[in-house]
Amino acid sequence: MASNWEEFYSSHPQPANLSKNEDLLRDFTARHLNGDTRVVLVTSGGTTVPLEHNTVRFVDNFSAGTRGSASTEYFLDHGYAVVFMHRVKSLQPFSRHFTGQKFLNMLDLIETKDGTSVTVTSENIPKIADVLRKYKSALANGKLLELSFTTVYEYLWLLRSACQILAPLKEKCILYLAAAVSDFYIPPNEMSVHKIASTKPQTISLQLVPKILAPLVSLWVPNAFVVSFKLETNKDLLIDKAREALNKYKHKLVIANMLQNYRQKVTLVTQQSSYVIELTTEQSRIGEEIEMYIVKNIVDKHEEFIADRSGRS
Amino acid sequence: MASNWEEFYSSHPQPANLSKNEDLLRDFTARHLNGDTRVVLVTSGGTTVPLEHNTVRFVDNFSAGTRGSASTEYFLDHGYAVVFMHRVKSLQPFSRHFTGQKFLNMLDLIETKDGTSVTVTSENIPKIADVLRKYKSALANGKLLELSFTTVYEYLWLLRSACQILAPLKEKCILYLAAAVSDFYIPPNEMSVHKIASTKPQTISLQLVPKILAPLVSLWVPNAFVVSFKLETNKDLLIDKAREALNKYKHKLVIANMLQNYRQKVTLVTQQSSYVIELTTEQSRIGEEIEMYIVKNIVDKHEEFIADRSGRS
Repeated sequence: MASNWEEFYSSHPQPANLSKNEDLLRDFTARHLNGDTRVVLVTSGGTTVPLEHNTVRFVDNFSAGTRGSASTEYFLDHGYAVVFMHRVKSLQPFSRHFTGQKFLNMLDLIETKDGTSVTVTSENIPKIADVLRKYKSALANGKLLELSFTTVYEYLWLLRSACQILAPLKEKCILYLAAAVSDFYIPPNEMSVHKIASTKPQTISLQLVPKILAPLVSLWVPNAFVVSFKLETNKDLLIDKAREALNKYKHKLVIANMLQNYRQKVTLVTQQSSYVIELTTEQSRIGEEIEMYIVKNIVDKHEEFIADRSGRS
Repeated sequence: MASNWEEFYSSHPQPANLSKNEDLLRDFTARHLNGDTRVVLVTSGGTTVPLEHNTVRFVDNFSAGTRGSASTEYFLDHGYAVVFMHRVKSLQPFSRHFTGQKFLNMLDLIETKDGTSVTVTSENIPKIADVLRKYKSALANGKLLELSFTTVYEYLWLLRSACQILAPLKEKCILYLAAAVSDFYIPPNEMSVHKIASTKPQTISLQLVPKILAPLVSLWVPNAFVVSFKLETNKDLLIDKAREALNKYKHKLVIANMLQNYRQKVTLVTQQSSYVIELTTEQSRIGEEIEMYIVKNIVDKHEEFIADRSGRS
């Protein structure tokens, strides 16, 4: 069991784009290593588990990427530099406000004899200007690095590399593990090479993905502030499951939430306590996001954590 | 076996938004029933098969929605009215050109003492103006109706309703079934209510989804021009599988494509013949899309089909 995760890595080859992503992570870390800027790695979106080597079908985990992409914006507001590690095509910070046809519906086409121009309609300018200003500032200041994954294998390889490269930031670094990572997978030697024929019913055997929080907390980023998420559908299990994870992996915080109301309510569970954050009806009505309050809380806890470490040393 | 699909519908309750979608389909059909406008129902994107009633995990089918969303634009170019029935968050016509951060990267923020404005950068105006013009025209002329689904159950309910409501258009109507629909499902009584615990390996039993092309062609839209798609990963099976589908369901055309090169090459298979459409390297280089050629071909075949029907009557 101890080397479970090592076996997992050795049986899944490293993704083709990993070294390129590692180069980007090294540049990003170097930029923020000496200085006061705090750093957070946000993971976001679901991971896939292919059923076939030539993948037509896959098992996926529910996650639009709302939590991770919204939280990234709020961390940037607090001055953090963010590595946003997200599922391909899940929501991204800033552009998340203008998905699908929303963006085209905000544009006016102006055709005159002098030529054609395209502008944002006046009623949409305040919102888009605010988003655009923040987005351009994050890029200009080198504060946002976006990396992506699709399968659970790509996720795990990229996560390990990111941890190892960010590790020198020590207590300045938060890991905010909001991605919905598959707990199950199909070993490569049990996968069909081609699309499974739809001629008869099928049985799929799923093995357990090793719990990666164990090496992450104890080996890869032993000095970072690690926050994990727990999503359940049965409220009787939620807090016990969160506490169980804290006892097992010895990290700082679990953000526990229910599928049914994860955008309105979360419970922040630490070794010592638990604390509920819940949007009021009025806060929801005026469009406030719970991620603003979650991130504010994490930033305060991170501040205490850094002060505590400095006091000790 | 004959009533297989009827049992399937009776064991999966109708989606909450179905009547609203049926109203939109009725308005759309009424608008185009008397007149020369031809109509196409385009299905697009993958369908999900939930593993739990409170769904955290699901099986999905590979499809970004490129084929369906691109084809929709080309059908509109040919004067067709389009019902675009797509997976929630898959690519949509027009906005598909500006996904993720692409759109924010095209905008300039201009802040002066007179106020703030946001414009599209000059180098991006030609492309966006062209897309915007077509999008606004399609909406203004009532030529585009967008409906969405997520699960295979929602897809099948919506597809049947759409067929039944579009049926009076007879031979004026094309069904262009580009969605990647699950061949498998889990019967409701075998599904877990809550999120499956990740404490031990799992086995999932998948049953066959009934082949809906059978009632669709023979009962729901017996006079329409029906085009289905066949995606394979093994080229030795591709054409045989397409021919097999045509023999079984008696529709007009199968567009056969390989996962590995579906954006460069397709084979149009009819009862009598098969015909390859393949982009040249030069066509790919200048950004041409294979859907332009596929749709042109289908529109010609639809024209012949209508002429043939009129000749007979």
